[in-house]
Amino acid sequence: MNTIRLGVVGLGRGFVLTLPALRRDPRIALGAAFDPRPEASDRFAAEFSATGYASLDDLLADSAIDAVYIASPHEWHAAQAIAALAAGKHVLVEKPMAVSVAECAAMVRAAEDAGRFLIVGPSHGFDEPVRSAATLIASGRFGRVRMVTALNFTDFLYRPRRPAELDTSRGGGVVYSQAAHQVDVVRRLVGQPVTGVRAFVGSWDAARGCEGAYQALLDFADGSGASLTYSGYAHYDSDELVGWISELGYPKQPGRHAATREAIAGLDRAGQEAAKLGRTFGPRFAEDPPAPHHEHFGLIIASCERADLKILPTGIEIHGDEGTDWLAVDPPAAPRAAVIDELAKAVLDSAPPVHGGRWGLETVACCAAILESGRSGAAVDPQTIISNALEQTTP
Amino acid sequence: MNTIRLGVVGLGRGFVLTLPALRRDPRIALGAAFDPRPEASDRFAAEFSATGYASLDDLLADSAIDAVYIASPHEWHAAQAIAALAAGKHVLVEKPMAVSVAECAAMVRAAEDAGRFLIVGPSHGFDEPVRSAATLIASGRFGRVRMVTALNFTDFLYRPRRPAELDTSRGGGVVYSQAAHQVDVVRRLVGQPVTGVRAFVGSWDAARGCEGAYQALLDFADGSGASLTYSGYAHYDSDELVGWISELGYPKQPGRHAATREAIAGLDRAGQEAAKLGRTFGPRFAEDPPAPHHEHFGLIIASCERADLKILPTGIEIHGDEGTDWLAVDPPAAPRAAVIDELAKAVLDSAPPVHGGRWGLETVACCAAILESGRSGAAVDPQTIISNALEQTTP
Ligand SMILES: NC(=O)c1ccc[n+]([C@@H]2O[C@H](COP(=O)([O-])OP(=O)(O)OC[C@H]3O[C@@H](n4cnc5c(N)ncnc54)[C@H](O)[C@@H]3O)[C@@H](O)[C@H]2O)c1
Ligand SMILES: NC(=O)c1ccc[n+]([C@@H]2O[C@H](COP(=O)([O-])OP(=O)(O)OC[C@H]3O[C@@H](n4cnc5c(N)ncnc54)[C@H](O)[C@@H]3O)[C@@H](O)[C@H]2O)c1
Repeated sequence: MNTIRLGVVGLGRGFVLTLPALRRDPRIALGAAFDPRPEASDRFAAEFSATGYASLDDLLADSAIDAVYIASPHEWHAAQAIAALAAGKHVLVEKPMAVSVAECAAMVRAAEDAGRFLIVGPSHGFDEPVRSAATLIASGRFGRVRMVTALNFTDFLYRPRRPAELDTSRGGGVVYSQAAHQVDVVRRLVGQPVTGVRAFVGSWDAARGCEGAYQALLDFADGSGASLTYSGYAHYDSDELVGWISELGYPKQPGRHAATREAIAGLDRAGQEAAKLGRTFGPRFAEDPPAPHHEHFGLIIASCERADLKILPTGIEIHGDEGTDWLAVDPPAAPRAAVIDELAKAVLDSAPPVHGGRWGLETVACCAAILESGRSGAAVDPQTIISNALEQTTP
Repeated sequence: MNTIRLGVVGLGRGFVLTLPALRRDPRIALGAAFDPRPEASDRFAAEFSATGYASLDDLLADSAIDAVYIASPHEWHAAQAIAALAAGKHVLVEKPMAVSVAECAAMVRAAEDAGRFLIVGPSHGFDEPVRSAATLIASGRFGRVRMVTALNFTDFLYRPRRPAELDTSRGGGVVYSQAAHQVDVVRRLVGQPVTGVRAFVGSWDAARGCEGAYQALLDFADGSGASLTYSGYAHYDSDELVGWISELGYPKQPGRHAATREAIAGLDRAGQEAAKLGRTFGPRFAEDPPAPHHEHFGLIIASCERADLKILPTGIEIHGDEGTDWLAVDPPAAPRAAVIDELAKAVLDSAPPVHGGRWGLETVACCAAILESGRSGAAVDPQTIISNALEQTTP
């Protein structure tokens, strides 16, 4: 076997962002899709000579499908991934892996029971500059990494949103949706289990009634630490700090955040859903031109004993004992190619993925810990959350 | 009385930085000095037609002296301030106020008992753009401030240092010396008591055996939060984020941090002390030309409900609902004029200072809490530290 026949579940914005990488990878054949919007699965069927199924069960019953990419709304991830694994499919599931640690633990068990791969992504932890920096750090050339600083100010909360995206109990708010990225990035750099989370969580716009900002400290098993700051309420645009390159790798005009707010100002709930749908896969969908730069998730500085690494969408600034070096990272062939590569290597070559189910579980445990610590003020150990959750899945 | 006759205790780097403001303020007459280095007090006496005393007691016995500016090494602050207050002088004491919360509490009591003013500064909490931003925030125009983000990467630990400056028990390390600034800045912006501190503290260069970095979350009484990140080990220079203006308000060449390390590379302990002495007041001292911009303490973003304020040494970027505005802050007449103004208004007009003894005590309590939380991982309430310390000073 040298091709993976992939079924896609959920043809929304997440799928659209991964599509260029799926198209380009010769190891992927787009074989089937399920989405409750028939106009989306119809186009998928026509464009990829694939089958548009009317239900997930029908898709999973298709024995020609090897693996499933789940890009439906968060709250469906667990049930759909578990069903797919039980049907013998490998699974790539979008971040956040699911909307609770219990769900993630059940998914991990389901993958282990089925003997199938479960990969969580894409997330910005897969971004090539992050991967290069992690490799540099792991080489030990600059001593151990001791402290990571991550900061991102976006207009996340003011983009057109489905109601679930603003409802924490359904995985909404910035902690599940966005900390999942930032935690992935810092975990990738440090390469150690997270043993403590201390956080402040902010919720200060009643019209978008969910957490919109957080500041968190992550403690790692080897004594290193990370500070994460995120605002999805922003006004200020921290893309300024990475050379005015957007999260998706495009050159960006300064001062766009006010326009984001303005664009939803006249829209009611249905209008926002429609606006969001306009960016999904369907009859009127047109692919964006490829991004010239890598994706990113804001300002990231990894402080090692002998250098600070500033990770940018174009490369890595190495501020070392003797001065500053620039390590260019080649522009991307396609965005999000790394996650497809990890999937393909797992399924075709049995290479254990970095971002497997246990990885995703730990990231969601960190998100849950951010929420809990934000409420209680106390330090929360995600490893305890993880072992408790795994214990409860044991038959 | 419309002039304050000031005695200066300690003619080092701290004094040198405040000197331009002292010279310029017509309400200040430099009347006396004490420094164990006779070459420094000799020059002081000659230049200002003042008296160079051979001991602090002699200076305090001079009834013509109204107030004392204590700019000696941290470990002397408490004893010298208490002696000065007992002698009936008003006191301006350099940051950090002292090297323990107990010392600070004793200083507060001494000022109250003596009925004299005790002011702690200068610190970057006095910087004019910070003050302007605090005024803007307090106006309520942008709603309440909910989250402050502060970040500073400097070469603090690699400048020439006295041994005490690298010894935590003597107030060395970046927490007492530098968090004192950063805590002052965020407290000034939020304007609320700090009720919780959670921190990571890093110490990763055995050759500079003290804390060199920290990341802290501050919780405020009204539910807002702040994240503070500081590295004095830096390689990376965050002055980049404020337009390449140095902490002292001068235009700055990128890439100076490697040169800092290089400059001390060949120096032993005595050599470093000598290098540091070269920057103090004395026969060969020459004042720098005035700085064109305000001083600053790195990247500061105050996130209010309806705007993010980015505070720069030249003004404030107001990122609001409708777009971005720029509020220029007039260039400084002299650096650190604000602290002298606060002193003069207190002593001459009995105006209660913002940065009085209780203010300084709370900042040092936050520093102590950062160290304690960094060790234990637990959240530490500085208000409890403060009331315990004050209780123990009650006769
Ligand atoms: N990795 C990233 O950077 C990234 C970016 C965007 C979205 N995502 C993730 O993708 C997932 C989907 O979010 P989105 O922004 O694409 O949402 P979206 O609203 O744009 O699209 C959701 C799609 O799923 C379909 N759908 C709804 N219910 C379904 C179900 N039960 N089964 C199958 N399909 C269903 C909808 O019709 C729609 O096509 C989320 O988990 C999100 O976090 C990830
Ligand atoms: N606010 C600021 O930005 C800032 C900047 C620099 C220093 N400071 C503060 O100023 C204080 C002094 O630090 P520095 O950098 O000037 O140190 P320094 O080594 O440059 O100078 C110390 C001076 O005090 C003198 N001295 C030593 N022991 C003394 C004593 N017992 N009584 C009186 N004088 C004594 C020394 O001879 C020397 O002149 C510290 O508390 C420091 O935190 C503040």
